[in-house]
Amino acid sequence: MPEALLDGLRVVEISSYVATPLCGLTLAQLGADVVRVEPLGGAPDRTRWPLAGSGTSLYWTGLNKGKRAIAVDLAAEVDRHRVADLIVHGGPCVVVTNTARHPELTHAALSARRPDVIHALLEGHSDGGAAVDYTVQAATGFPLVTGPADVPGPVNHVLPAWDLAAGLYLATGLLAAERRRLRTGRGASLRVALEDVALATAGNLGYLAEAQVTDHERTKSGNDIHGTYGRDFTTADGVAVVVVILTERHWTKLLAATGLTAAFAALGDSLAIDFSGEAARFEHRDLISALLARWFATTPYADAAKALDAHRILWQRYRTFAEVGRDPGLADQELFAPLDQPGVGPHLAPKSPLVVDGTRLDPSPAPSVGEHNAEVFGPPKREADR
Amino acid sequence: MPEALLDGLRVVEISSYVATPLCGLTLAQLGADVVRVEPLGGAPDRTRWPLAGSGTSLYWTGLNKGKRAIAVDLAAEVDRHRVADLIVHGGPCVVVTNTARHPELTHAALSARRPDVIHALLEGHSDGGAAVDYTVQAATGFPLVTGPADVPGPVNHVLPAWDLAAGLYLATGLLAAERRRLRTGRGASLRVALEDVALATAGNLGYLAEAQVTDHERTKSGNDIHGTYGRDFTTADGVAVVVVILTERHWTKLLAATGLTAAFAALGDSLAIDFSGEAARFEHRDLISALLARWFATTPYADAAKALDAHRILWQRYRTFAEVGRDPGLADQELFAPLDQPGVGPHLAPKSPLVVDGTRLDPSPAPSVGEHNAEVFGPPKREADR
Repeated sequence: MPEALLDGLRVVEISSYVATPLCGLTLAQLGADVVRVEPLGGAPDRTRWPLAGSGTSLYWTGLNKGKRAIAVDLAAEVDRHRVADLIVHGGPCVVVTNTARHPELTHAALSARRPDVIHALLEGHSDGGAAVDYTVQAATGFPLVTGPADVPGPVNHVLPAWDLAAGLYLATGLLAAERRRLRTGRGASLRVALEDVALATAGNLGYLAEAQVTDHERTKSGNDIHGTYGRDFTTADGVAVVVVILTERHWTKLLAATGLTAAFAALGDSLAIDFSGEAARFEHRDLISALLARWFATTPYADAAKALDAHRILWQRYRTFAEVGRDPGLADQELFAPLDQPGVGPHLAPKSPLVVDGTRLDPSPAPSVGEHNAEVFGPPKREADR
Repeated sequence: MPEALLDGLRVVEISSYVATPLCGLTLAQLGADVVRVEPLGGAPDRTRWPLAGSGTSLYWTGLNKGKRAIAVDLAAEVDRHRVADLIVHGGPCVVVTNTARHPELTHAALSARRPDVIHALLEGHSDGGAAVDYTVQAATGFPLVTGPADVPGPVNHVLPAWDLAAGLYLATGLLAAERRRLRTGRGASLRVALEDVALATAGNLGYLAEAQVTDHERTKSGNDIHGTYGRDFTTADGVAVVVVILTERHWTKLLAATGLTAAFAALGDSLAIDFSGEAARFEHRDLISALLARWFATTPYADAAKALDAHRILWQRYRTFAEVGRDPGLADQELFAPLDQPGVGPHLAPKSPLVVDGTRLDPSPAPSVGEHNAEVFGPPKREADR
């Protein structure tokens, strides 16, 4: 096995919940030595649902695979100082945390002891106020355009998308700072606010500019994809699928697959609609959907799948988490490998989505509370030496 | 201004749609010189909605801020070779692309010319098959647990969350590979499949382990947060808000804010429920919600906001994109800065969510088609020199 990308990099993670642990997980999966720091007894997210029958959190063990864990009394200055020692002594280290509560572990305190320290702080609001994924999504606009048009009110997404993105921004920022440190020897202080991640994304995707420079008010459109053609259908035997038509080639193929080429040619002629353009397909989506829905409603899933695949349409059957997790094919996917997690038992766990030189590191178990105290801090000193 | 983190790093981006452009944008916002390569006339995503009145894509300009753009005939070997020359000659360069179509621009071809090249390829499925955010979300399980319990069928999220995450995984992977290159001189070939990003996330958050090691079937629970207490409410004057209760302190404070301390004490006594635990609050959420909904339904927004803030509850009003984008306070947020984008006009555009040493780079306009051909390729050679 050649050297992993992040061999020799230590990450000290003083974290909880999703974003900062995901940052640490992402770096661990690329070969970093990630040490998660917890209060005595374990961090509050250790019990978060979903749980295994044993009471072990499947969420916690999922987000903390392959890390080492130390438990210290974070309320005690002497213990906070011991954690700071791990950061300022030894090899190159980066720090990721979701708290500014511990005076010895801030960027200011650490950089006074070791000028080249790299430290990343996750905040809720950029003014330092508290926020979580659910409050940030409400602040941003997405829940009010999600869900069926006839269901009033917000529909929250279940995926903690802002936590996910924030964790990956933190990883990106730490590695960008590590590049500068390798080239110039300088450390860095990084901050990411969960709210900024959401607002920046709404800006980058054009939603906020649309509000500023046009009169358009984005409203709910169910599962219709905005600005192009795509939505869900149900087959004769009740299977839900999504179909996405991005290009003129997709469109032509879809008509061939569903036997609707002549029908749309006639419709286009009589109504003077050119369906070959993406904007026209979006504008006339209800007309398109009415004809496609008839085809799906009269076609069994197996036949629909065959026709769509034969014409290389972008489509997918909706699956439940249970179907995905219990799919016998999961074991054959190179993303997954067997993991025997204490408290959970043997199951298939994901590696990194990043394949490096054709390979990825196998998953390792998440640690128990304080599992690596002795290993990280070394043998306990005798009283006389303290 | 001190040196930006990615000063001196060139990124050649042969991309389209969201994930790979977001990777380039993220690196550009940290100081990299990002050159987006497009076919003659521009990439197909140049016209993607939402659009400004001029027809300029707000989506495209949002995702391509601060890059340089070159337009070449990607169907012609000579032009593909010119792009490859940009990668193999000159300073350190990384490549990010969503296509393996161009033989001269694959990792194999480029690394044969320059062994230390770093090249990242975004795929749909990990077997190289096509997939987009909408098909990947259908494959994963989230749409079938999103939305009100009484709305059958899938509810797609509007945010292209998997594109967002994939773009940030690409950025993380490129910078991790850049670290190894700086230390060892070795290049790297990276691959990320959109489907793997989604499946790995479902695994990391415990959803797939839950399906494997328990009998539990995750079902829709509307806006109720799974495993803890949180949901939306509507105030007397019709304002939608979300409230999140993660800790016992939050719970005690919420009861104080809503005047329900005595009511829940009495309920707890008579029904033998200990509401102080997160699992109990989730289990008895309908009871909690019934009482809280009464309070919200009889309390005007202004009073509710005051009470919740006074008790430092995690809560947020739902806002539309229009409210966010047209909020006069946007200009005061350090995340945003004025940008005069050709085809769009002056508006407030986001910087990076990453604050580095207390600062971030201001946004720069997205380029027009081929705007930087001369600058990137140098003055056109005379026929005799070719």
